[in-house]
Amino acid sequence: MRNIRLLIEYEGTNYSGWQFQKEVPTIQGAVAEAVKRLVGHDAELYGASRTDAGVHAFGQVASFKTASRIPLFGVILGLNSMLPEDISIRDAAEAPPGFDPRKDARGKTYVYRILNRSAPSAVIRNFSWHVFKPLDLGLMRQGARHFVGEKDFSSFMAADSDAAHPVREVTSVNIEDRGDGLIEIEVKGTAFLRHMVRIMAGTLADVGKGRLGPDDVAKVIEARDRTAAPMTAPSRGLFLMKVDYP
Amino acid sequence: MRNIRLLIEYEGTNYSGWQFQKEVPTIQGAVAEAVKRLVGHDAELYGASRTDAGVHAFGQVASFKTASRIPLFGVILGLNSMLPEDISIRDAAEAPPGFDPRKDARGKTYVYRILNRSAPSAVIRNFSWHVFKPLDLGLMRQGARHFVGEKDFSSFMAADSDAAHPVREVTSVNIEDRGDGLIEIEVKGTAFLRHMVRIMAGTLADVGKGRLGPDDVAKVIEARDRTAAPMTAPSRGLFLMKVDYP
Repeated sequence: MRNIRLLIEYEGTNYSGWQFQKEVPTIQGAVAEAVKRLVGHDAELYGASRTDAGVHAFGQVASFKTASRIPLFGVILGLNSMLPEDISIRDAAEAPPGFDPRKDARGKTYVYRILNRSAPSAVIRNFSWHVFKPLDLGLMRQGARHFVGEKDFSSFMAADSDAAHPVREVTSVNIEDRGDGLIEIEVKGTAFLRHMVRIMAGTLADVGKGRLGPDDVAKVIEARDRTAAPMTAPSRGLFLMKVDYP
Repeated sequence: MRNIRLLIEYEGTNYSGWQFQKEVPTIQGAVAEAVKRLVGHDAELYGASRTDAGVHAFGQVASFKTASRIPLFGVILGLNSMLPEDISIRDAAEAPPGFDPRKDARGKTYVYRILNRSAPSAVIRNFSWHVFKPLDLGLMRQGARHFVGEKDFSSFMAADSDAAHPVREVTSVNIEDRGDGLIEIEVKGTAFLRHMVRIMAGTLADVGKGRLGPDDVAKVIEARDRTAAPMTAPSRGLFLMKVDYP
């Protein structure tokens, strides 16, 4: 039995997130359906990250098992010919029999994009959060330092999260000015709680506006209470960039 | 009578181009309709560039006349509240009574985006031309030099163009590697023929693939014949970036 690993890009706008649900379109559902048509049998599709509705990915990783002898380039071309245009298979590779995209992941990189200018964007409206109040990037960078390390991120966890424990390790947060109002917050960590990056982005936006001081971020973390943190930033600004494996 | 100048961003995907046509959606038609609702009377809307169906803009310029006293910020907020999400008013300013966005333009900047990798992109599928054969940027840059100057661009003009004469001046062509397969061709000139930048992009792609030598670009220009030039690159890769005024 082969275990095939896929690298997947998608625009999440028109999907109810990664995870399969009945009667609503999901990325997992669309890819699993295409895999079934390709290999001629049902195949369980495992994903590295259960991205929320509206969240995008440049580097989601998934895997499925099959006895099919279809070559890897045929997997890529075949799946892309059957998938809708807003999902694209970037690569396919043979994985060890026990490879599990979720359990074997050692780290993930997300980017949250804020468009900080007065007018909304027509071109990247589905790929950024429009914040019209000017943001101070220096303050945001000071605030972001408090996120780095292994911490209890209870304040940055969706209320309905089913995580067994709230401790996660953030390895870096970098904030870059990409010009023309576009700000990118890159967050790397070993693993993340549900909504964690979006609540971090919402908190950093409040720091950039001056509503919170940079050192208030430490207090919000220490509160270990979701209600202590500002709003969850909208899903359309979030991109899963990369999943790391040993 | 005020003459109000607008700076407009749009995603061209769902429009039959800038110029008003009956019974199909156009950018000019949508903006003119919003202006009419804003000021309470019909107003002729003049644009700087008649972009084709599917072409995008970060910096289209247009103007309309009105006796309305609505402040400029009210023009921006009012129009954005009425326009669909794929059209955005970035700025509004008072212009001299005789200002004409098209006739007064002294130069324009376009960017053509090619995605050069094997897999198509889900995220920028409507904002780039997917070319999977690897392109040699060094050859493309050599070929691009032949475009610079005041030349007869008959070979780079749509067959149905109504231009009075085919001489135009290209002031620069810069080709940048933006990473992850994204190539941007930036073209600046005083004015452009219909499809000119797209035929230039198609020609440079052929140079990058090795189908044409860099110096063949000079021969294609000298032929003064549309059939001498390669294909017109698809409209979805083209962006009107900026229009210059004295």
